[in-house]
Amino acid sequence: MTTNTENARRNGVDTATLFATLDAVKGDTELAKFQFRATNRWLTGTHNRSTIHGYHGAKQEMTHQQPFTFDADHPPVLVGGDNGPTPVEYLLHALAACLTAGIANIAAARGVTLTEVTSTVTGDIDLLGILGLSEGVRNGYQQIKIDFTIRGDDPEKLRSVVEQSRRRSAVFDVLTNGVPVSINVDAG
Amino acid sequence: MTTNTENARRNGVDTATLFATLDAVKGDTELAKFQFRATNRWLTGTHNRSTIHGYHGAKQEMTHQQPFTFDADHPPVLVGGDNGPTPVEYLLHALAACLTAGIANIAAARGVTLTEVTSTVTGDIDLLGILGLSEGVRNGYQQIKIDFTIRGDDPEKLRSVVEQSRRRSAVFDVLTNGVPVSINVDAG
Repeated sequence: MTTNTENARRNGVDTATLFATLDAVKGDTELAKFQFRATNRWLTGTHNRSTIHGYHGAKQEMTHQQPFTFDADHPPVLVGGDNGPTPVEYLLHALAACLTAGIANIAAARGVTLTEVTSTVTGDIDLLGILGLSEGVRNGYQQIKIDFTIRGDDPEKLRSVVEQSRRRSAVFDVLTNGVPVSINVDAG
Repeated sequence: MTTNTENARRNGVDTATLFATLDAVKGDTELAKFQFRATNRWLTGTHNRSTIHGYHGAKQEMTHQQPFTFDADHPPVLVGGDNGPTPVEYLLHALAACLTAGIANIAAARGVTLTEVTSTVTGDIDLLGILGLSEGVRNGYQQIKIDFTIRGDDPEKLRSVVEQSRRRSAVFDVLTNGVPVSINVDAG
């Protein structure tokens, strides 16, 4: 019984429910269609705040257990109030978080035990782009690098888990391949 | 004097410092090279936490006025503990925050007064991709939409400010055009 319970929750992942969820989605692929959302309000200067609460998935409207709010701002060196990270820093967090969640899930599904997963993400950006000072410089990051330190079972298995997480990461896909973004404006 | 002060801080943006910063960067383009960073630590299951603190810019190492930490997790319907938004929801926040900061800066630089900027971002995703249940479905968002409500001066000026923010947004660029991401693994 203890062994079953341990197997069912390897790395803190409820693998029994994970496999049951996969089976349910195989049986009804409409369950897999999700829409995530954020709302944002300008406060002052470059300081603004997003709220993340409701989403649609598994054929129903749902909410997180609580609304999550996040402030973004520019630092003083970029003429802001430093009331939060810059928007581009949130992209780095999203990448690390997505790959790390995938690592935990995939390792659990494969029966691989993890003891530590840490990472550092860096993004290099030349602000001549967004400042409008050079048409030859892009607005966004020129490159992003992420370094993982991962401990647990056999290193080869751990490396394979990271690679599979990369292959199935939503954020990695969006950041490397891009996505269509449409903007609508009600200027009243 | 009151008029000067109001002009110098339109929309909460210190436009005098903004223009001085632009002039400084024009005079020494090395000042525009920034590196942003995040570190992440796996907690349990799909729950992990990022810290954003130090960065490099303007030819020096700098830190935000405080370390910012953010939790990410999957919700129960995706076999997580809902201790934070999903990683892909942070992408929506980053987009709204970047465009909104740009709107405030560009409006201030143009002498356009804002009274309200709110937005709702949605991202549609079919989880058959990340669940590995359909090779024809991408892992990431299929589309992102952002709806702005903006109030203040003349609607045409406001619409033009939003369009210029889109043209100079770092996050919009990364999300629509993609960026090279390299992953290194120490499985020691």
